[in-house]
Amino acid sequence: MNALENFNIVLVAPLYAANIGSVCRAMANCGLSRLSLVAPQCVDGWAEAGRLACHAGGILDAAPRFDTLDEALADASIVVGTTARDGLYRQHVKQPRGFMPKLLEQAGRGANVALVFGREDTGLLNEEILRCNHLIQIPTHPGYPSLNLAQAVLLCCHELFLSADIYEAPVEKSDFAPARQREQCLAMWREMLLATGFMQQEKADHMMQAFQRIFSRGAETLDDINILMGVARQTMWAARNAPVSK
Amino acid sequence: MNALENFNIVLVAPLYAANIGSVCRAMANCGLSRLSLVAPQCVDGWAEAGRLACHAGGILDAAPRFDTLDEALADASIVVGTTARDGLYRQHVKQPRGFMPKLLEQAGRGANVALVFGREDTGLLNEEILRCNHLIQIPTHPGYPSLNLAQAVLLCCHELFLSADIYEAPVEKSDFAPARQREQCLAMWREMLLATGFMQQEKADHMMQAFQRIFSRGAETLDDINILMGVARQTMWAARNAPVSK
Repeated sequence: MNALENFNIVLVAPLYAANIGSVCRAMANCGLSRLSLVAPQCVDGWAEAGRLACHAGGILDAAPRFDTLDEALADASIVVGTTARDGLYRQHVKQPRGFMPKLLEQAGRGANVALVFGREDTGLLNEEILRCNHLIQIPTHPGYPSLNLAQAVLLCCHELFLSADIYEAPVEKSDFAPARQREQCLAMWREMLLATGFMQQEKADHMMQAFQRIFSRGAETLDDINILMGVARQTMWAARNAPVSK
Repeated sequence: MNALENFNIVLVAPLYAANIGSVCRAMANCGLSRLSLVAPQCVDGWAEAGRLACHAGGILDAAPRFDTLDEALADASIVVGTTARDGLYRQHVKQPRGFMPKLLEQAGRGANVALVFGREDTGLLNEEILRCNHLIQIPTHPGYPSLNLAQAVLLCCHELFLSADIYEAPVEKSDFAPARQREQCLAMWREMLLATGFMQQEKADHMMQAFQRIFSRGAETLDDINILMGVARQTMWAARNAPVSK
């Protein structure tokens, strides 16, 4: 079972269709697909939703609409509200980074989890907050704590997506360079730097420590080391054929 | 020094002013303030930028514009590009979660860090990628990997903001409940549940294990325990005055 499928994003009375569309796209970016709309207002016209959803229009088309939050939560076993404000009922808020992995684990055991987001201007009302088993608050800067609705949904969904461990990072195609090749590379560079006149024999030990430091920070793979050895090889050839003046 | 001030968000040839505005708001939400615009296109009209920036218009007003990426990067000591695609030059991409703390540390030691984001449709061009010391890729679902520009900026900035450890979570106002009060609470509930006829004496030990489990999951603080003891106290009073039939 894909635990992400057990999450339902519930938007309560969203004012702007553009935000609904952006929410759809953010959900698709993170592998979520269930959206519920409670009494959407869409003062900017419904067409904006489709425009902002881009290639996630399928989520928009499939999203059921409800008159009340209670109806939207009928099949939810865990209801998680989001709040930007402190105060009443809100001192037990959790943060997405720590809490989403727990929700994902519960969804993986079959729990239907509703993540509830309030209206753009006033958030969730107190009676809506009371319907929530848990509250989360997304950390933001005190200078401007209010996130755009779709941005808030994205941060929650992305945390879930990372927890689900679906993403496969591009694979480093080269193996880590073994110590033997590293030594060989440094030896070639020493020879090269002497041959070009970059350093004198008596300074070589000291200078090579710098190159060892630079290479160990910058050159991790066998490919990297092979490139550096290629530079040394070619430069020594050039230095032999056109000796550098000292 | 506030390390976040050493980050510069560089948008290369953004198509939509609305996205520029949303970027400003996302930056303010995360405590960043330096924005640079390289050859902005703004096919939707510049006014959209101000509308979407909301209370972050100051960032928009202060953002310098440049004709070329090179000019925008003139004072950058570390240039970090963002890419959604794999392929050429891109197999060494890093992810924000692991990499942003390192960048923040370098910014804290005085490095000017430019985070470069490409155009909405084609991202950064290969010659722009070559100007970057590092590349990051934001993990997304393979079904729809392409993030909206402002959403991508938000995920990077929010990772920086969390790393900077500025956010103060709402403080739990009640102390954790000590074991003695927990025991006292359970004893009161045992008495109450016997008094109301909810359980018989011979089942009490077994049943109280369930309440211990529920309370230890759900009631963490002294406030919680005091509420539960209040319930027991009041219920026993009610049971005495109106005995429950068995």
